[in-house]
Amino acid sequence: MNTFGKRLTLTTFGESHGPAMGGVIDGFPPGFKIDFNLLYKTIAKRRPGSSPLVTARNEKDHPEFLSGITPEGITLGTPIGFIVRNTDHHSSDYDEMARIYRPNHADYTYARRYGVRDHRGGGRSSARETVNWVVAGALAEQWIASKGIKVEAVLSQVGPVTAGDIFDGLMTKPEQPFSLDVNPEIKLAMEQVVTEHKKRGDSVGGKVSCLVTGMPPGIGDPVAGKLHAALAGAMMSINAAKGFEYGLGFRASCANGSETADSFIPISNEDENIKTATNFSGGIQGGITNGMPIFFSVAFKPTPTLMMPQCTIDTSGQKAVLNPAGRHDPCVAVRAVPVVKALTAFVIADYLV
Amino acid sequence: MNTFGKRLTLTTFGESHGPAMGGVIDGFPPGFKIDFNLLYKTIAKRRPGSSPLVTARNEKDHPEFLSGITPEGITLGTPIGFIVRNTDHHSSDYDEMARIYRPNHADYTYARRYGVRDHRGGGRSSARETVNWVVAGALAEQWIASKGIKVEAVLSQVGPVTAGDIFDGLMTKPEQPFSLDVNPEIKLAMEQVVTEHKKRGDSVGGKVSCLVTGMPPGIGDPVAGKLHAALAGAMMSINAAKGFEYGLGFRASCANGSETADSFIPISNEDENIKTATNFSGGIQGGITNGMPIFFSVAFKPTPTLMMPQCTIDTSGQKAVLNPAGRHDPCVAVRAVPVVKALTAFVIADYLV
Amino acid sequence: MNTFGKRLTLTTFGESHGPAMGGVIDGFPPGFKIDFNLLYKTIAKRRPGSSPLVTARNEKDHPEFLSGITPEGITLGTPIGFIVRNTDHHSSDYDEMARIYRPNHADYTYARRYGVRDHRGGGRSSARETVNWVVAGALAEQWIASKGIKVEAVLSQVGPVTAGDIFDGLMTKPEQPFSLDVNPEIKLAMEQVVTEHKKRGDSVGGKVSCLVTGMPPGIGDPVAGKLHAALAGAMMSINAAKGFEYGLGFRASCANGSETADSFIPISNEDENIKTATNFSGGIQGGITNGMPIFFSVAFKPTPTLMMPQCTIDTSGQKAVLNPAGRHDPCVAVRAVPVVKALTAFVIADYLV
Amino acid sequence: MNTFGKRLTLTTFGESHGPAMGGVIDGFPPGFKIDFNLLYKTIAKRRPGSSPLVTARNEKDHPEFLSGITPEGITLGTPIGFIVRNTDHHSSDYDEMARIYRPNHADYTYARRYGVRDHRGGGRSSARETVNWVVAGALAEQWIASKGIKVEAVLSQVGPVTAGDIFDGLMTKPEQPFSLDVNPEIKLAMEQVVTEHKKRGDSVGGKVSCLVTGMPPGIGDPVAGKLHAALAGAMMSINAAKGFEYGLGFRASCANGSETADSFIPISNEDENIKTATNFSGGIQGGITNGMPIFFSVAFKPTPTLMMPQCTIDTSGQKAVLNPAGRHDPCVAVRAVPVVKALTAFVIADYLV
Repeated sequence: MNTFGKRLTLTTFGESHGPAMGGVIDGFPPGFKIDFNLLYKTIAKRRPGSSPLVTARNEKDHPEFLSGITPEGITLGTPIGFIVRNTDHHSSDYDEMARIYRPNHADYTYARRYGVRDHRGGGRSSARETVNWVVAGALAEQWIASKGIKVEAVLSQVGPVTAGDIFDGLMTKPEQPFSLDVNPEIKLAMEQVVTEHKKRGDSVGGKVSCLVTGMPPGIGDPVAGKLHAALAGAMMSINAAKGFEYGLGFRASCANGSETADSFIPISNEDENIKTATNFSGGIQGGITNGMPIFFSVAFKPTPTLMMPQCTIDTSGQKAVLNPAGRHDPCVAVRAVPVVKALTAFVIADYLV
Repeated sequence: MNTFGKRLTLTTFGESHGPAMGGVIDGFPPGFKIDFNLLYKTIAKRRPGSSPLVTARNEKDHPEFLSGITPEGITLGTPIGFIVRNTDHHSSDYDEMARIYRPNHADYTYARRYGVRDHRGGGRSSARETVNWVVAGALAEQWIASKGIKVEAVLSQVGPVTAGDIFDGLMTKPEQPFSLDVNPEIKLAMEQVVTEHKKRGDSVGGKVSCLVTGMPPGIGDPVAGKLHAALAGAMMSINAAKGFEYGLGFRASCANGSETADSFIPISNEDENIKTATNFSGGIQGGITNGMPIFFSVAFKPTPTLMMPQCTIDTSGQKAVLNPAGRHDPCVAVRAVPVVKALTAFVIADYLV
Repeated sequence: MNTFGKRLTLTTFGESHGPAMGGVIDGFPPGFKIDFNLLYKTIAKRRPGSSPLVTARNEKDHPEFLSGITPEGITLGTPIGFIVRNTDHHSSDYDEMARIYRPNHADYTYARRYGVRDHRGGGRSSARETVNWVVAGALAEQWIASKGIKVEAVLSQVGPVTAGDIFDGLMTKPEQPFSLDVNPEIKLAMEQVVTEHKKRGDSVGGKVSCLVTGMPPGIGDPVAGKLHAALAGAMMSINAAKGFEYGLGFRASCANGSETADSFIPISNEDENIKTATNFSGGIQGGITNGMPIFFSVAFKPTPTLMMPQCTIDTSGQKAVLNPAGRHDPCVAVRAVPVVKALTAFVIADYLV
Repeated sequence: MNTFGKRLTLTTFGESHGPAMGGVIDGFPPGFKIDFNLLYKTIAKRRPGSSPLVTARNEKDHPEFLSGITPEGITLGTPIGFIVRNTDHHSSDYDEMARIYRPNHADYTYARRYGVRDHRGGGRSSARETVNWVVAGALAEQWIASKGIKVEAVLSQVGPVTAGDIFDGLMTKPEQPFSLDVNPEIKLAMEQVVTEHKKRGDSVGGKVSCLVTGMPPGIGDPVAGKLHAALAGAMMSINAAKGFEYGLGFRASCANGSETADSFIPISNEDENIKTATNFSGGIQGGITNGMPIFFSVAFKPTPTLMMPQCTIDTSGQKAVLNPAGRHDPCVAVRAVPVVKALTAFVIADYLV
């Protein structure tokens, strides 16, 4: 219930306002030299407080690695245990939440599931958990990079501002150079939407798009272990995720087979990897990579925490008012970008170890 | 790699043109009386040849149950083994495919993954596998029905013809009566689109929408076992699936938090289940049910098999022409309806056993 | 609950008097050519009726393979489904057992576990299940043989007649030639013990010893995946197994460290595998093979079915008499020999795929 | 590879001389009040330095719980993460071991398995890992105690000094009062054997016997999830374990069925649990408990670390001498007693959650 992956696994723990988050990474390949400088930089990108647009909680989020790595930074093949201390929690901000259920949060559902819950900052249901994923994903990212695989993620929509059909070129003309960068004007417009919502104490949804290049063909398992199903399962595990699509995605519903057939380009040398003239498939067929780029998008709902009074109920079901307290992420999708990237790297690594 | 579920599991086998499909259902509750008449009816809905719109392959698809059930039809709690014979395969239709890769199929990826493949009818990658899921799902459906849970699925889009925002009423006014039925005129238009594509030898994409009612609150596991992530993983395992969204789905990307907060309706009796005034969440919060209806949609690409010559390559990478052969489903989404329903019932049961 | 293995898995089903036994082997390597003649011979060794000493139930036990293998006998890497029909069951022999609990059987415990049970021939708790293991093990055996690994098993004790410290030479002088064969006189004495017990309607315990040679070093996982722990778990899953020991086994309890240290023999070439001067360890250290032979023994209790009236209780707890009926294996250890061999081959293969 | 259990799981990490040991306990029931005083006492029993007979390494071994428990000591149902710092390691004692392989240790096998190893104190293969199991087992023990289940373990053999057929009374007259206590004279003799070996720098084997009382009937899963197979797998995972037997154990090999039939005692009230007149089965039939006491023994080899020079090889295969260094446990079975108890409690809890 708290373990991701099959061959490379990540088992995590931690409540938002408990002593620490942490996890165990099992199955990481031995003999790999970790670049800790790069690692801490990658992890820092998730950190709250790194941008005026996100929650003010400011923690160093410096993971302490406890096992599985030699003093020289070489992986041993044994499980890598790590913890990240929770240092900046203002638990008293959440006192009210012990007796009321916040709308659109997991307060009521956890209470029903367990009969007991840690109300402080959302407890186990908090997005604080994603720090564990980013630590594990940052390690995975270095390892798959050593095999020539690169994962990129970008914020492709915030409320009404969208980067459009961001993968269009990649689908129709995969041989052309492609960049996942979003136009600076659109980025600015996105920031304005976030700022406006923040001012009003409101929140707004968004979309994150992700690209994986350098994948060798033949990676994935059929039927119950399809690579894109694993990606979907991982992405939908991220807090606030509401949708996943890869390749042509939902636009496939109105497409013709004859126009989206991804025909093969003949090759002269039998040992070469094969390419396709278009890439509507998104690099995966029958759950297994064909060597073309993998790409997908994930939709995120507006964060349910609002900085305005909300009508709700208390734990006995009576009407109550929730006053704004705690911290506020006006657009959870902003912070989801490094999380999508990290989990993607982890899933890819799980299929390659 | 061929096992679905955690507590209730389905392990399957079978190549499209091998002797049989089949599976083992483990963890099914003991002492449950199966209604075999109903079971065979449910399974028949998936059957090819049940409509002029789908592939002409006509098989009885009558499962033989080999264990786990007493002669009186009572489950024993022990694994339920079953097989479904493959009887109507025209393997010679597929001879050409031994030496060429069909575009947009899993031929090339299986060859890369395993070094060997069964080219006849797609082998293990064929949608024939879904018969196993429908058998298991039909059993699960009966069992969850005994707990008051109902799963419905409907074809909500075929190419350009769409049933619109099919769950709109359910999200904004969940207290109003709701039907998943699609307007007969739209259904007729969908059929016409399929028929036109069939005539041209082309294929077309579609969308299937699914509704689960009667769920008790508190079902689901946090973090790596979220109910909607399990549903996403299962749905994306269906052949040709390209996208999954639940609740507000991709529309969440442009929504405000203040307008989609799903506030609670106060209750007079503490023992009652709680309801929300809106249901943009789709019945799940933090991965756990809140007791409101669950609903989601799945996008399907056009089936890659076309009844027209296609340029492709042979197994040595040389240019080749694929002549139409075998059977043809112009719109795989049509046949996915009972599959979506079956897998959903199975996933729900997995969380309830 | 019905799945053995981690990477190579066997999921089984079947009640003794149901339509069929069967299973799914998942993770078997692709591209392996199966020798079906050899396979059927290996499987036949388990068959009841193959010796006057064992139960009279006479079934062909011919597995039908349903998937995962090409018509030419090449494995596809996809799951191998198989069934073995139950053809010679005399269910009426067991009518009495619907209302009484046989002593020392699993009748009462299954009734408590599931609330329902298949009393005919022991249902799921019958040793009939081992036919599934022997089918899977026979496939595994061929595959590990292709890597130079050989598994042998022998009956090393029947009641008071024992082959002695059968592995003594292998432990103290591993460089000497070694045979697992049991002295013909001891074998004859064992047969006499079985025959005497059969005549009296009684049963007798026994011991099976197993040897694995040709193992490469470095196979096994530490901590929760130790190779000898997996072997212990598998062996103790065999019906009637009461004990497992490997290497020095229970004699280790009274040994000194200085006399059982298995010191290394220096080598001239760094690429060579290392050998040890003694092999009290039984070829495994820290859960991982060192390249020396692996050996272990498994104790089996007398089969609880007796051909004599027994005092027992009925399902309401009242005194009852169990009259002899059904078939009778006076010494279950005799039939366990091919089962031990098969499961061992399967466990070894699980660590090598 | 580092996860124990199926429903209640323990995933561990830690090298002997790394920063910390630790683990994640997932699936622990919510709403349980932990008695921390009792917990620390239980954990302290494993601690090195608690007796002159065991290794001099003296660590507080105080676990820090990081999640899954409220400040009031109530379990949340979410994963319980914990760490135990390694504070008293004298890594320089082990410098020599970087270039030589200690006989009968896991040095060579880890090197072959991973290509890299942490030589300091045995790294991941050290019995230091058992501290993780004792922490998890101590929690499990409290929870099963709340259900009336008690686990006891005792040292029943050290070298030639044995407590005899310690479970004899329990098998033949289970209705008589039974104590697992070992006669004080025998205990003294055991201590003398340990002391003598310690003086000589030698080590000695031993045996630990374990008793579980208060088990309800119907606990366990058939075929691949048998309770005694899970116990065997867990016990054989303990460092230095060489054998496992339950109930009649290896003596079953020379027993008759008619004398070991465990006949049922008729009951007057159908709702009562059933008892048997003898208990040669050891409380489990077909892998499922029958409500009678469970008991088993585990054989341990002499610890391979000796306080005398030993001939061995270096990592290039050349002859080398290993000089005594590090700490020394003359009889690992002594310290295995609380480990056997802890893992048993954990396995039992895994079947009850």
